Formats: sequence, C-alpha cells, structure tokens
Amino acid sequence: MRIDVLDKPNILSNVRVVLSHTTHPGNIGAAARAMKTMGLYQLYLINPRYFPDPQADTMSAGADDLLRNAVVCSSIDEALEGTVFVAAMTARLRDISHEVLTPREAMPLLAQHAAQHPVALLFGTEMSGLTNEETGKSHVLVRIPANPEYSSLNLAAAVQVACYELSVAMQYAGLNLRQVEVVPARHEEMERFFVHLEDVLREIGFFNTKHPNKLMQKLRRLYARARLEQEEINILRGILSAMSGYNARPGKNESGRE
Amino acid sequence: MRIDVLDKPNILSNVRVVLSHTTHPGNIGAAARAMKTMGLYQLYLINPRYFPDPQADTMSAGADDLLRNAVVCSSIDEALEGTVFVAAMTARLRDISHEVLTPREAMPLLAQHAAQHPVALLFGTEMSGLTNEETGKSHVLVRIPANPEYSSLNLAAAVQVACYELSVAMQYAGLNLRQVEVVPARHEEMERFFVHLEDVLREIGFFNTKHPNKLMQKLRRLYARARLEQEEINILRGILSAMSGYNARPGKNESGRE
Repeated sequence: MRIDVLDKPNILSNVRVVLSHTTHPGNIGAAARAMKTMGLYQLYLINPRYFPDPQADTMSAGADDLLRNAVVCSSIDEALEGTVFVAAMTARLRDISHEVLTPREAMPLLAQHAAQHPVALLFGTEMSGLTNEETGKSHVLVRIPANPEYSSLNLAAAVQVACYELSVAMQYAGLNLRQVEVVPARHEEMERFFVHLEDVLREIGFFNTKHPNKLMQKLRRLYARARLEQEEINILRGILSAMSGYNARPGKNESGRE
Repeated sequence: MRIDVLDKPNILSNVRVVLSHTTHPGNIGAAARAMKTMGLYQLYLINPRYFPDPQADTMSAGADDLLRNAVVCSSIDEALEGTVFVAAMTARLRDISHEVLTPREAMPLLAQHAAQHPVALLFGTEMSGLTNEETGKSHVLVRIPANPEYSSLNLAAAVQVACYELSVAMQYAGLNLRQVEVVPARHEEMERFFVHLEDVLREIGFFNTKHPNKLMQKLRRLYARARLEQEEINILRGILSAMSGYNARPGKNESGRE
C-alpha cells in the first residue's frame, strides 16, 4: 500500500506510544520530546511511578503539551484499547519469542495499519523491560540492533529511534524533502567553463611541463563529481576572468594592454 | 570492494563523534551511552563547558569508559585532524548550504570512507548548533527529518539516531563502495588549500567588489561536495602556484614574456 503524503498527519495521530511502569519521570519527559520531534503526539502511561513530575516537565523541553494530554492508565488492556496492531520494543532475545523484527522491518507494518486504525508502540520499564503479559498482547517484537557488549539504550533514546524509523517509513511514501532550491549548471555552461579554464591555465603557463589533456580530464572529473550549480559556475568563471584581467591590467606589462 | 561483516569493528573504530562546545555535561554522558550502544567508542569534545563532570558520569550509565578516553580539544581543526570525511549534523536549513542529506543517505557514505580512513560525525552546541566555520569544514550536512513544528531533538537523541543509522548502514554492508582506489584529502590539506585559494584570490583582486567570507563559504561548499582527493588538491594548488608564479615572473611587468 502506498501512503499518500496528505495522510501523514492522520497516520501519525493513529499511533500511540505506550510507556509501561516507567521508573524515572525524566525519561517520560525526554520520551515526549523524542515523540514530538517525529510528529507523534499520543502518549499513554501505564502506572508511571511519578507523574506528573517536575523532572518530566524539564526533560520534555517544548513538548509539555504531550505530558498535559497524556493518558494515564492502570492496565495494559486499558492502554491498548482500540488498537489493531501493537509493536513492542525489546532489548532482549527471549525464549518463547514472538517474531522479532528490526525497527526498519517493523515500522512500515505499523504505518500500514495506522493508515486506517489506531496502533501502539509499547515500551517496558527501564530495568526489566516488558513482562510476558505485555509481549503476549503484542503482534510483533521490535529489537534495535545494538552492541552485543552494551545494548542498553536509554528509554527515551529507544523511543527516539523507533519514532524516527516510523517517521521515515512514512516519508518513503514518495516525498523527498530536499528543501533547498538549486539550479544545476547546464551542459553547455559546463563546457564553456572548461574552455575558459583551459585557456587561462594555458595563459598562466600551467601546462608547460604537464599533459593538458590528462589534466583537463582530471579537472572535469572533479567538477563533474561536484555537480556544479549555475551560481558556482559564475563564481568560478569570475575567478578565471579576474586572473586574466589581473594579468592584462594596464601597467602590468610595460606597454599595457587594452 | 565489499566490506566484510568481520571488518565492522574496524570501521567503527575509524568513526569519531565530535561534540562542539557542549553546554550540559549530562548530554555528553548521554551521548557517550548512545554511541556505545551502537558500537562507537571514539568521543572528541571541543571546549566542553563542564568536563569531566559528575552529571556526565551519571548519564553515561555503563559507558563511562568513553568519557575516560574522550579526547578534549581546543579547536575544530584539532578535533578533525587526520579525518578525510566530516558529516555535520544540523537542525537548520541554511542559506549558503552544503549538500544536505538525510541520515539514511549520509551514513553509507560515512561508512564507506571509514572503511579505510578516520571520519567524523560533528555535532554543534545545544542551542545554536553549528557555526559557519564548522559547516565550512564539513563535507556534508546531515539533517534528521523532523516535525516542522518542533524539530528540536535533544543532543544525545540526535547522536543516537545518527549512530543507529551508521550502525545499520554497516550491517547492510554489501555497500556500494566506490570501486576506484582513491586517496581522499585529509582535513588539514583541505584547510591549506583554502588558505592558498583565498590568498591568490586576494592577490588577483577577485575580492575587490565582493564579500570574501560569503564567497569563500560558497567555494568551501563546492569543494566539499566534490570530496577532493589528494591528487586533486595537488593539481588545484599547482594551478594557484602557477597563477602567482606567472604574475611574479621577472620581466612580466617590463618587457612582456620571455
């Protein structure tokens, strides 16, 4: 299914982030900030140890609206009510495991479901992660590939990565956010530049002991790789003109040039 | 060339994370933790406001080894010495911008270079991000696509996303490596080239009616995009020398050419 660009806000509003039994309120605030940077707004908290809390407010920075609107629940079922798909984040590999996907594999699935129905991204408590009850109510487990010697992502960092992948999964619904407008140089402008460059290099004697063709090939390769813009061609040709002009200045040669 | 999976640790050890002028020591600790979860160990700090600091230790959790081994530098040039490719993370869209890539586009490039040479992931200060000097010394800018209404990722969260993408890029390491063996220019060679270029442009009067800084920024951007090789630097500096030499030749000002 292709997700239309216009639907993105609606899809995102169908995604709730559920934090279960979070111990440190600072993590709730930081998670809210991470969510909001990726365009997610629906925060659900299952029995947070401290909430609301000044530390949560501080860490949320400008995302305190998510905290004010957070839905505090007393059970996993309450938090997941109405959802059709639950992706549970885990750091561990389990014995009786569900399907374990990477975020890159899982988030397109989540986005697909979210196009029509509420879905949830579920995060366990900081120290022990998800309970068996929680994984049992999930559709897929999602594990962020991590350093085998140190796999302990901070809770908000895991929220950031998961929401980032979800957001990217949605953006690959066709849009490419190249914001800056550039005007690439046209072929004939490039060619004029190379003629100009070769002329000036000859004038200043650069080719005396070298092989013009080979050198010009190398310079072509360099500037081709740069994918020159029109404005840059103008600058470079300006430099070449200044060079010639400098040499041609009256008084520069005794007899002067016109 | 294909990067073998076994080489991953070596590639990662070629990647340094450079944090410039970090204000909050907690962010340094959290960034270290984020790095280590993704298998990165080389932390460079440019003039951190407080370091070492107990808050950094606390936030690093089990990644305090990265803090102990962190390299504290007093300048951007010191931090980038020896690197051949610098990806600078930015939250802003700029006027005179370098090439701006997403993490997904940029990290395979970084991985490619890191397969053979030291590279850097550069992060600006929390509030104002990168300086023009810092972007000027980078090869690509990397922008995490974010909520237009709230794009402010926490520093450590941005480190987490960037390192995560890098780690994933390496896992998909059937990477499209540039087949040709090239020797990329080192940071310090690039800087010497820009000094030389500016000197010659001043000498030939190119700056007379223009703004040197803005123009130099544009030229930096152009050559950053080209990812100059060592040999190309030699050619370009040869051209600059020929230009000066041509003008300085005895007899140039009196009787014309020999």
